[in-house]
Amino acid sequence: MFLMISFDTIQEAHDRIRPYIHRTAVLTNQTINERAGAEIFFKCENFQKIGAFKARGGLNAVLQVVQHKEGKAITTHSSGNHAQAVAFAARQVGMPAYIVMPRTAPKVKKDAVLGYGADVIECEPTLEAREAGVREVIERTGAVLVHPFDDDRVIAGQATAAKELIEDAGIERMFDVIMAPVGGGGLLSGTALTTHYLSPKTRIVAGEPEGAADAILSFRSGRVEKAPYINTIADGLMTSLSERTLAIIRAHVADILTVSDAEISAAMKLVWERMKIIIEPSSAVPLAAVLKHKEQFAGQKVGIILTGGNVDLGKLPF
Amino acid sequence: MFLMISFDTIQEAHDRIRPYIHRTAVLTNQTINERAGAEIFFKCENFQKIGAFKARGGLNAVLQVVQHKEGKAITTHSSGNHAQAVAFAARQVGMPAYIVMPRTAPKVKKDAVLGYGADVIECEPTLEAREAGVREVIERTGAVLVHPFDDDRVIAGQATAAKELIEDAGIERMFDVIMAPVGGGGLLSGTALTTHYLSPKTRIVAGEPEGAADAILSFRSGRVEKAPYINTIADGLMTSLSERTLAIIRAHVADILTVSDAEISAAMKLVWERMKIIIEPSSAVPLAAVLKHKEQFAGQKVGIILTGGNVDLGKLPF
Repeated sequence: MFLMISFDTIQEAHDRIRPYIHRTAVLTNQTINERAGAEIFFKCENFQKIGAFKARGGLNAVLQVVQHKEGKAITTHSSGNHAQAVAFAARQVGMPAYIVMPRTAPKVKKDAVLGYGADVIECEPTLEAREAGVREVIERTGAVLVHPFDDDRVIAGQATAAKELIEDAGIERMFDVIMAPVGGGGLLSGTALTTHYLSPKTRIVAGEPEGAADAILSFRSGRVEKAPYINTIADGLMTSLSERTLAIIRAHVADILTVSDAEISAAMKLVWERMKIIIEPSSAVPLAAVLKHKEQFAGQKVGIILTGGNVDLGKLPF
Repeated sequence: MFLMISFDTIQEAHDRIRPYIHRTAVLTNQTINERAGAEIFFKCENFQKIGAFKARGGLNAVLQVVQHKEGKAITTHSSGNHAQAVAFAARQVGMPAYIVMPRTAPKVKKDAVLGYGADVIECEPTLEAREAGVREVIERTGAVLVHPFDDDRVIAGQATAAKELIEDAGIERMFDVIMAPVGGGGLLSGTALTTHYLSPKTRIVAGEPEGAADAILSFRSGRVEKAPYINTIADGLMTSLSERTLAIIRAHVADILTVSDAEISAAMKLVWERMKIIIEPSSAVPLAAVLKHKEQFAGQKVGIILTGGNVDLGKLPF
């Protein structure tokens, strides 16, 4: 079950979304390589439309809703980048979007969603209230739900980031390791599938915050587990896996490494200072894991997906 | 006088430094274009070696000191990016460098210079003390001075940034305007010469902070003037022009526009938030001028040199 996303499906997703997305740069940095003792290739999804890789999955899903005439509006619940991704994608196809957001979400994020012409429906900041909000929207408008990660179309869209990384790195031998952070697992499972198809000998390793360490437990037990506690600056990674993403991750991911907020913050600062690019805390999690476990990556070619660059400049962790 | 830097000289400088520098990206941003009402091409020298365009001029001078066997060591005085540029360039050729720095310079900047293997000589934070420090170094070591801007070799090196911008923009018709910030005028005069040779119809416009507004006075009077007062977040732009840079600027620059620190800070924040790249305050001065004087740039193709990305993340202006 849940392993039906073929390489053709990922290729089709890429062809479908290509007119709407940036083919983001793959950057390297000599100082960071020296610091890590490895050769790291950063796929810069912080430069992606809406400032994060989520534009890929949102577009792939919304474009198929249109293609298959599944409905005349889109809905989702999210307080983060997925909300913007769905609002952005709906705007590209001229479809109304109804985004259920917790009333505690930062104004800047609500404004960004409104800026793409979507409706924002506020709700209490609980998963139950968010899901109830979406159900209400669906009953009222007939909108189609685009889930942030528990959706093959979203996963196939996110899978295109690793595809570009592999195609564009310009290296002779293949990556030894490809890394992504893990929250709900949409990016990680997509990355794992692409890497499995294009470079089966490459190890797929995830980074996870200690303060949202559900995936490592689920990965070990084989069941979807809750995190022991949720408290991390990597605010994009607080969600748990679904059965779907867990199945793909168990099939293709070699390891999950956890890092503390201090390690995430230090890695984020290193990227800002040395690469002169802005990444959000979630993006820094894989690099933090490399710097923490240098012995596992010594001399290797490592691809890392920098997931996004949407930070509140007034609330930096350093 | 002072107009002897031919296009061949700039081409030779480019060939000379090319193995040591990055050919930095030229980036565009849809939101900023909409905000400005113009089509802006940013030459990202914040991604350059040492984090700033100054690597170009420093290398071009130091490589010629070696080529012409002028001396066995290099010296300069600087508290900013030029100090790192000279230290970096000297290291590339295996030559000792003696950098005179005011004792008030931030520790992080001294550490960066030391990190390139240069000697740091501390002095009082006055121009007299800095120049005396350099004279002492020259007497003691026979080092050759590489001035931050009053040097044809430095100007020819800085001129290569605009050359790459023009070569790489990938536009059919030429830029209407090319812009750079102005401090001592090394970058601006180099940019003006390159643009004059490669695209004589393009207007060259400089941005200058109100809190270091010497260049606009000198540009008008034809004499090297002092700024009425010095107080700006654009800490790379506090120096005055020299006779040499003023002559080139008077010959080829169309206008100098001044902006306040609030306008610089807002433009800097816009670039950080929308482009997800880190630029220092000095880099934001030309964009601030475009946003302040939209009517002068409406519908035009504008090239802007983003000069560097060396900021203290603990002291942001927003």
